[in-house]
Amino acid sequence: MNTFGRFFRFTTFGESHGKALGVVVDGCPAGIEFSEKDMMPLLERRRPGLSPLSTPRSESDTPEILSGVFEGVTTGMPVAMIVRNRDARSGDYESAKELFRPGHADYTYHAKYGIRDYRGGGRSSGRETVSRVMAGALAMKMLSGRGMSFESRIVSVHGISDPELFEEEILSAKSAGNSVGGVVEVTVKGCPAGVGDPVFGRLDAALSGAMISIGAVKGVEIGDGFSSADVYGTENNDLMAADGAGNPVFLSNHAGGILGGISTGEDIVIRIAVKPTPSVSSEQRTVDIYGSNRLISTGGRHDPCIVPRITVVAEAMAAVVIADSYLSMRAYGSFEGSEK
Amino acid sequence: MNTFGRFFRFTTFGESHGKALGVVVDGCPAGIEFSEKDMMPLLERRRPGLSPLSTPRSESDTPEILSGVFEGVTTGMPVAMIVRNRDARSGDYESAKELFRPGHADYTYHAKYGIRDYRGGGRSSGRETVSRVMAGALAMKMLSGRGMSFESRIVSVHGISDPELFEEEILSAKSAGNSVGGVVEVTVKGCPAGVGDPVFGRLDAALSGAMISIGAVKGVEIGDGFSSADVYGTENNDLMAADGAGNPVFLSNHAGGILGGISTGEDIVIRIAVKPTPSVSSEQRTVDIYGSNRLISTGGRHDPCIVPRITVVAEAMAAVVIADSYLSMRAYGSFEGSEK
Amino acid sequence: MNTFGRFFRFTTFGESHGKALGVVVDGCPAGIEFSEKDMMPLLERRRPGLSPLSTPRSESDTPEILSGVFEGVTTGMPVAMIVRNRDARSGDYESAKELFRPGHADYTYHAKYGIRDYRGGGRSSGRETVSRVMAGALAMKMLSGRGMSFESRIVSVHGISDPELFEEEILSAKSAGNSVGGVVEVTVKGCPAGVGDPVFGRLDAALSGAMISIGAVKGVEIGDGFSSADVYGTENNDLMAADGAGNPVFLSNHAGGILGGISTGEDIVIRIAVKPTPSVSSEQRTVDIYGSNRLISTGGRHDPCIVPRITVVAEAMAAVVIADSYLSMRAYGSFEGSEK
Amino acid sequence: MNTFGRFFRFTTFGESHGKALGVVVDGCPAGIEFSEKDMMPLLERRRPGLSPLSTPRSESDTPEILSGVFEGVTTGMPVAMIVRNRDARSGDYESAKELFRPGHADYTYHAKYGIRDYRGGGRSSGRETVSRVMAGALAMKMLSGRGMSFESRIVSVHGISDPELFEEEILSAKSAGNSVGGVVEVTVKGCPAGVGDPVFGRLDAALSGAMISIGAVKGVEIGDGFSSADVYGTENNDLMAADGAGNPVFLSNHAGGILGGISTGEDIVIRIAVKPTPSVSSEQRTVDIYGSNRLISTGGRHDPCIVPRITVVAEAMAAVVIADSYLSMRAYGSFEGSEK
Repeated sequence: MNTFGRFFRFTTFGESHGKALGVVVDGCPAGIEFSEKDMMPLLERRRPGLSPLSTPRSESDTPEILSGVFEGVTTGMPVAMIVRNRDARSGDYESAKELFRPGHADYTYHAKYGIRDYRGGGRSSGRETVSRVMAGALAMKMLSGRGMSFESRIVSVHGISDPELFEEEILSAKSAGNSVGGVVEVTVKGCPAGVGDPVFGRLDAALSGAMISIGAVKGVEIGDGFSSADVYGTENNDLMAADGAGNPVFLSNHAGGILGGISTGEDIVIRIAVKPTPSVSSEQRTVDIYGSNRLISTGGRHDPCIVPRITVVAEAMAAVVIADSYLSMRAYGSFEGSEK
Repeated sequence: MNTFGRFFRFTTFGESHGKALGVVVDGCPAGIEFSEKDMMPLLERRRPGLSPLSTPRSESDTPEILSGVFEGVTTGMPVAMIVRNRDARSGDYESAKELFRPGHADYTYHAKYGIRDYRGGGRSSGRETVSRVMAGALAMKMLSGRGMSFESRIVSVHGISDPELFEEEILSAKSAGNSVGGVVEVTVKGCPAGVGDPVFGRLDAALSGAMISIGAVKGVEIGDGFSSADVYGTENNDLMAADGAGNPVFLSNHAGGILGGISTGEDIVIRIAVKPTPSVSSEQRTVDIYGSNRLISTGGRHDPCIVPRITVVAEAMAAVVIADSYLSMRAYGSFEGSEK
Repeated sequence: MNTFGRFFRFTTFGESHGKALGVVVDGCPAGIEFSEKDMMPLLERRRPGLSPLSTPRSESDTPEILSGVFEGVTTGMPVAMIVRNRDARSGDYESAKELFRPGHADYTYHAKYGIRDYRGGGRSSGRETVSRVMAGALAMKMLSGRGMSFESRIVSVHGISDPELFEEEILSAKSAGNSVGGVVEVTVKGCPAGVGDPVFGRLDAALSGAMISIGAVKGVEIGDGFSSADVYGTENNDLMAADGAGNPVFLSNHAGGILGGISTGEDIVIRIAVKPTPSVSSEQRTVDIYGSNRLISTGGRHDPCIVPRITVVAEAMAAVVIADSYLSMRAYGSFEGSEK
Repeated sequence: MNTFGRFFRFTTFGESHGKALGVVVDGCPAGIEFSEKDMMPLLERRRPGLSPLSTPRSESDTPEILSGVFEGVTTGMPVAMIVRNRDARSGDYESAKELFRPGHADYTYHAKYGIRDYRGGGRSSGRETVSRVMAGALAMKMLSGRGMSFESRIVSVHGISDPELFEEEILSAKSAGNSVGGVVEVTVKGCPAGVGDPVFGRLDAALSGAMISIGAVKGVEIGDGFSSADVYGTENNDLMAADGAGNPVFLSNHAGGILGGISTGEDIVIRIAVKPTPSVSSEQRTVDIYGSNRLISTGGRHDPCIVPRITVVAEAMAAVVIADSYLSMRAYGSFEGSEK
């Protein structure tokens, strides 16, 4: 349940205010140069405390590789990585331990487990994505050697699609004690045709599951997504032609780089809908664990909009999915080839 | 890759024009009454040849249970089920064996495997969903004993949301040699709070991956989905209150019945975007396996709109996901309970 | 639980007196020539009714491939295979439905599931191994293209190691209404160095689990096995030297072809202990499902010694394990190689 | 490959002379009291440097729980645990980095990965079992609440079965620069009937695979094991009778507590063969990574006999297997029971 993937498989652990966040990647091939430095720029993009757009919680998010890398190169053994929590303030959450915060997982974790680490959401906190970014950094490093890269952009914030207004919109919500969401688009460049598996291992299915597994994501589209439901087949099909060298090329990319669950060689395009942060300063109705009506203000340290920081997490999830399917392709490609 | 789930786990097999479609469910508890009759009404809903809206291919889709059911009750052993293909016409596809049909998986399967069963799409055909419906029938039977039910409705066809116009729109596209898509909504009723697992086993992630694994599905939303990206946190949060009996109730359901990846006890609501069938009668540009430019008309036997027949497949996928997570809840619920 | 392997993964199904036995291999690479004829000689070796040494139950064991093979070659899609039961006689077991046969799984299945298919042991019958042999046939075909082969021999029957006395010993036990066991050795030839994974994916661990998963197997050894516990390290170590071409060779093979869970390139040697068939004609004490003391004679149709027929099953299990680890090696071999 | 189990699932990581050894248990139910103190006595039993029978390497083996335990109780989230290496001496291994030590995994890791952490065996070192003991401690704690306990004893050392001579035999081998192995028996007490799954999830298969996954183990037996191959069926069957309360009891336990892969309620008995430590002081023939003949003495810090320290590892592996199957029983027990 905390394990992702079949080939490039990793398990994450850690709570918002526990000792550490971490991940163990069990399924990384040998021979990839990798060090803490490969993670730093990605972790920096999701690090809290850097701007008025994010939570003031201050964490250096310094990663440490515990295993699986020898003399700067992966050995094929499990790569364990951790980030210690520094600015954990359990005391801040004492008052909320008996309350279910609206829009958070408090009630459902309580219903399921009977016990929960209530400090800042515990395991259900967005802080959990530190682990994903570390795994994604390793996946990106592996795939960069095959010519792949990962990009993302904010499509809209609170329904507004002009990038110059994004920051203003977020700060406006923040000053009103409110929060906003948005839409993010991730593009994978350089992925060759043939990545992805039939039926339940489809690349689009894996990407979708991966994206919605990020807290706050409520929808996902591949290529034209929901728009494709509104057009004719002749408008939606991506026609093909031979290029000068006789290689097949696609004349459009409505499909978002995936047909039948397998990559076409075109850019892979995924869009995700991010809900507004559930933590808001204004008072909201809720109940406590004893079933009494209560009012709650979830001010504290939180992001008025998670969209800017979620971009790198979405890239990381795209990377681990591609890495997973890429290794599958190595295993199951035509057996009558010449490799040993 | 053709296996779904961790607990209610099943593997599907079969090609469009092969001998049979089938599924083996390995992970169904003992003690559930189940027979071929439980599958018939569901298979009937996706069966081809029933109306001018669907392909004229005629299949009786008669299921046969091969194992795992004894004296009408599941034994806990694998339940294998098959449907034999009757109206397979391999000859129809002889002309297309060297061509990549636009919008289909022909090119990607060729790129990945070097070999493919080109008859009607082979494994990538929508006919593969027969297996899913059989597995879904067993999941629904299991969950109905816990008070759960599965419904679906067509939200729109080709952008039109008036149900009275759906059939007209589809037939209009058909007569023009074209095709259309649409949006389908699935609702799960009666699911208790606590179903779903943290992080990568989140119920919304599992549902999304399951839905997009259905061919032709290009987008998925949970609850308010993409709309939630456009509103304030105070608008999107589902507040709670105590009912007369002191039980917590939600005052709205923007979340679609899932918080933190775990069910809240409210209706679970999923919407999917279905692309227009890629098979159209008008000529389209493509290439053949030798890299030459060609023109293709994929008339033959096909659906002008897959939306009506996909509804039961979407329900089936919702059912297998819930069944999977429900069994997980049994395994991992608080250990200090009184059961043996 | 009825699924084996991570890469060359298959799920078996079927009961002794149900409709069919079968297997779905989900994880076979594309491009392997395979047909029913490849299974026939192996199925013939385990087929009942062929000699006075085996049960008189008469089954033709004719396999049918339902999917995954197109024009005689695997496509990378799931390969489903079944054998229909012919000589099922449910009536024979009516008297035993309330009794727990000593040495059989009747009591434990009853304790676990509350329900069981009591006809001839149902799922726990040795007839289940038909599925394993079919999967093994595909694995052997795949590996034969890489120069690997699988052999086995009977080491002893009822403690006697002279092959000329095996048949006599078995018939003697049969005429006394009793049964005997023995020891079987499987040898894998041609397996290159590097097959197997660290720690829990060790080749010796996988082989051992696979062998003991065969009903009636109560012990397993790799290489010198239990004997190695009785000698000095200097006697047990396999020393190495360079051959004329400068390639490392082992000067002995006490390890049975596996070091650190990974193949050395030497013959892989496994021995298994097979218990005497629990079905015997003489009366034995047991209880019924109501808790009353009873006497039972499990005469009927059974093998006085399962050893001769188990050899091909053991070879099949060795083959699926090697196939599984071989595909893993393809996925995780050094990533900086030249393949695409 | 470094992940064990399906329900009580854990992933281990770490090398002999890396930064830390660790394990993440993903699949532990909520509600189990657990702290570092529960691990200490078990880690102490396998800790090096405690007696002349073991390696002089000095490690305190102090465990740290990083996640999944809140206020002393498991929360259902992943439990990550690490032990930092203290007495790592990479320099000691400089001379051996180009040599394949006989009986070790040096050659096979080199053949498979092209790169290896050569310091003290890296990942293939017995030090890896620290992780297993930590996972086993959690499994034992979980199962102790259901009345189960785990014991082990040394059956023989170097073929000698008198316990008074074990130490003398080991010290004698040590003073001769040699090493010895032995046989260990593990007994699980209090396991109820019904634990274990059919076919490939059989409890005996899982236990065997788990045991042989421990480095140095070359054979495994369940119950009478290899001896059962030499007796008549009437001698090997465990007859049943009703006790005074009408409950079925077994009159013997040749089966070692498992029938058809499922526990009978009797003691579960497993025996393993442990080979002599491959590290010996006398010079042995080998080759280096360039294919040249060399002589090697693997004196250094090593155990003359791993048997005394392996007992707790074998108990730990038995515990994780039982925990895994026990959770499976919770998930798949009869569905028509009264639990929610």
